[in-house]
Amino acid sequence: MYNDNVEKLKNILKTQRYYGSIGALMGWDVWQGQPVESRSYMQEISGFLVRESIAKLTCDESKYLVEYFKNYDVDSIEDIYQKRAIKKFIKQFDRITKVPVDLQVEIRNATQQAQLVWEEAYKNSDYELFKPYMYKNFELKTREAEYIDNSKNPFEVLSDSFDEGIDVENVATLFTELKTAIIPLIKEIADTGLDYEINELAASYDKNLSSKVMLDILKKVGYNTNRSIWGEKMHPVTTGVGPRDARITTNFRNFEGAMFSFLHEMGHGIYNYSANEKAIEYSMWGGIGGAVHESQSRFYEIIVGRSNEFWKYFYPLLQENIKEFRNINFDTYYKAINNVKPTIKRLDADELTYNLHPIIRFEIEKDYYDGKVKIEEIREAWNEKYKEYLGITPKNDGEGVLQDVHWAMGYVGYFQSYTLGNLYDGQFLNSMIKEHPNTYIEIKNGNFSLVNNWLHDNIHQFGTLYTPSELIKKVTGEELKSKYYIDYLKNKFNNLYGIK
Amino acid sequence: MYNDNVEKLKNILKTQRYYGSIGALMGWDVWQGQPVESRSYMQEISGFLVRESIAKLTCDESKYLVEYFKNYDVDSIEDIYQKRAIKKFIKQFDRITKVPVDLQVEIRNATQQAQLVWEEAYKNSDYELFKPYMYKNFELKTREAEYIDNSKNPFEVLSDSFDEGIDVENVATLFTELKTAIIPLIKEIADTGLDYEINELAASYDKNLSSKVMLDILKKVGYNTNRSIWGEKMHPVTTGVGPRDARITTNFRNFEGAMFSFLHEMGHGIYNYSANEKAIEYSMWGGIGGAVHESQSRFYEIIVGRSNEFWKYFYPLLQENIKEFRNINFDTYYKAINNVKPTIKRLDADELTYNLHPIIRFEIEKDYYDGKVKIEEIREAWNEKYKEYLGITPKNDGEGVLQDVHWAMGYVGYFQSYTLGNLYDGQFLNSMIKEHPNTYIEIKNGNFSLVNNWLHDNIHQFGTLYTPSELIKKVTGEELKSKYYIDYLKNKFNNLYGIK
Repeated sequence: MYNDNVEKLKNILKTQRYYGSIGALMGWDVWQGQPVESRSYMQEISGFLVRESIAKLTCDESKYLVEYFKNYDVDSIEDIYQKRAIKKFIKQFDRITKVPVDLQVEIRNATQQAQLVWEEAYKNSDYELFKPYMYKNFELKTREAEYIDNSKNPFEVLSDSFDEGIDVENVATLFTELKTAIIPLIKEIADTGLDYEINELAASYDKNLSSKVMLDILKKVGYNTNRSIWGEKMHPVTTGVGPRDARITTNFRNFEGAMFSFLHEMGHGIYNYSANEKAIEYSMWGGIGGAVHESQSRFYEIIVGRSNEFWKYFYPLLQENIKEFRNINFDTYYKAINNVKPTIKRLDADELTYNLHPIIRFEIEKDYYDGKVKIEEIREAWNEKYKEYLGITPKNDGEGVLQDVHWAMGYVGYFQSYTLGNLYDGQFLNSMIKEHPNTYIEIKNGNFSLVNNWLHDNIHQFGTLYTPSELIKKVTGEELKSKYYIDYLKNKFNNLYGIK
Repeated sequence: MYNDNVEKLKNILKTQRYYGSIGALMGWDVWQGQPVESRSYMQEISGFLVRESIAKLTCDESKYLVEYFKNYDVDSIEDIYQKRAIKKFIKQFDRITKVPVDLQVEIRNATQQAQLVWEEAYKNSDYELFKPYMYKNFELKTREAEYIDNSKNPFEVLSDSFDEGIDVENVATLFTELKTAIIPLIKEIADTGLDYEINELAASYDKNLSSKVMLDILKKVGYNTNRSIWGEKMHPVTTGVGPRDARITTNFRNFEGAMFSFLHEMGHGIYNYSANEKAIEYSMWGGIGGAVHESQSRFYEIIVGRSNEFWKYFYPLLQENIKEFRNINFDTYYKAINNVKPTIKRLDADELTYNLHPIIRFEIEKDYYDGKVKIEEIREAWNEKYKEYLGITPKNDGEGVLQDVHWAMGYVGYFQSYTLGNLYDGQFLNSMIKEHPNTYIEIKNGNFSLVNNWLHDNIHQFGTLYTPSELIKKVTGEELKSKYYIDYLKNKFNNLYGIK
């Protein structure tokens, strides 16, 4: 009976992933060239699949299984994959059945509409135009959160849908520690008067040539082309299609953007396609969403990819292939890819100042749900925080409060993931180096198996078996702390800017 | 009640197309770069979708609707789209419910297996290796046919699944008329001793350049890039994804192959994506399969694309872009693209001798079902017919009986479509010219709207509203006859070879 029900559960979970995979493939197709007149029909199909998927998740068999497992002593189950699958299934079922279908449809329609208006508002730098939709989106997401769990602050509930088990107050504390450390550091760097910028990073080179060089670098690092393909797209993104199928994109507007977004998306990709067979069996492939996923992309992009040792190994290859770099010595190049300079846009930010951008958005969202800020005050709150934390003020709403599409998409409670991902990285790196003091020496020698194996064995292979807080404790022996990442940043940038 | 049931029917038909569209997209994805390790998972999803689709087509509501409409005076329905949709639905339902699911699965597995063995056998030119699978495939397809309608010759039933309403004896008669006319014509041409071959057609040019030139030609002819994209692939093919979404491929192994397969697939594509709104409403988009679809691809490839007037207009563009053609005068080029020379492979054949290749396969299939030939005698039957009709004999099974994958795929009863498509073209062209004697003058002037509009208004817009025989009668006022195509061929090739 129990075993039968587990098999039934596995089947339902598998089917849910099938629908997700088709949706992902359709998303990939949109960006890879779907004919424009095909869009509305393909959207019809998407809608159909969503309804089918929900119907299957909420069918009588599912109801029966939820009932059965709710009355079962789940904590006593020895197989950790099985136990986790059952818990996730119950949570997912509850979540979807608690929110009325009408509200789900309303959110879908409202966010689609809001994205269209956002595009317009963004182009015209006009927050006033977008405000009614901003208001509507926040209101709908709040209602959704209340249906799911009205005993909690809606912000907690919404953030939990991206970062499972999140403790918002704890995140706020970690962020305060982080910003208290890095705002002065940024100021100290500015005071040195040093600017490492070089034009070669902002140039775009022959696309065939540079994509070849970049892919060679990726493959050498460990990108598995049997489990991934890449495409070109306006916005770099990773699409997880199947357990052994994660597709990445980049664009070639300039060298730095293309190179590091390639490494970034590769990090997502590797995490996506590396679950072990047991995780796949229980449909837990793809990796933990939100901050943990971001930590894996940024590990390859930054912890590995912007390190001195990484380019010690790869810079000759770059110079060999892109002649403009032949006149730039290694030191100049290395400093340039780590130049610190506050930017008004999150996506243009360097490694250090980047952290403050998501913190600003997170604090605004939190203040909103704590009743300290209203929708009509968000622009002012935004501009004040940019002034305070980064010392700069947006010239208009387009480069200010409208710069990200997330709120238009209904992604309320997502932004913390980006900076949290960095905190995870600091702590993961600390453990990695404790276990393997030769980590960066290996990188310098072009041996990436140490890094790859460590991430695989500790993180990638498990898919979504653990919650974020379970994972960090298992891997590093501690709760998430800010100090490791802060130490990493101080060490790196004090060195780079000769700050003692 | 009636209207309600029609709405329900429309919904079921729509859902069936959704599943078909996803399958088509997944097929497209395989060829456009799906990571190799993703294959087995994507096949799992395909299998799931097939079962879902069958379950929906055979669900209680469908059963009820079939019952309801079988008891309804369908012939009295005034709306021709509605009437046709109901009839098609009943036929489809009967077909799928009559064949036991076990047999359907067995056919699927056997044909998948057979394709793998075929690849091996093809590479090693070893018909003996493939023979047991050939035997199995024919045996399974025969059983399927007997389940569908055991009052008919299985060959009739199988052919009907590709060319609806086909009358096999009639096709045999038409083919006899055709071969009686063209075998002597081919001989006369051979007797002239003329060979128009030029190396430039067999060369492959810079891919970027030649794809640009070819797409410019396609767009000028009428290819709608809002409804189609193209990709590169080993085998040129058209994938109909949605009512306004047909994707075409070509490859660039040589100029002639790429140019004319582009035009060929464009013909399929235009037919695919041009159904009118009413046809779409009743899920009848995509065009009539088999011979009629082939007639539309070959109309653009041959009737238009290998005509003197077409290249009178486009040859300067070709010479401008591909310098190798600058030394070839128009007359030489035109003769070269129409050079007649029997080939051992169907896919290498010229316009005239091509017809005999499908006829040979059709006759062999027909003889098999008439009990005149056994599986173990097919190779010999094949070689004899090639000798008799084309005057050549395959050196081995790879270039002989194993050259096509169709039988391995379980496509028994398909081959007639290719040559039948040409017969349709002859008759369509005759009507077009009768209505518009200036057809080819327009083409020579680069005006393609006459041809496009005629095909659209008479054929493309209706999707699958008519059966093939209804369509030809509606469009040309007559049953399908061989004389129009024979006259066209005689006229063209007598002229080309100076035969009086």
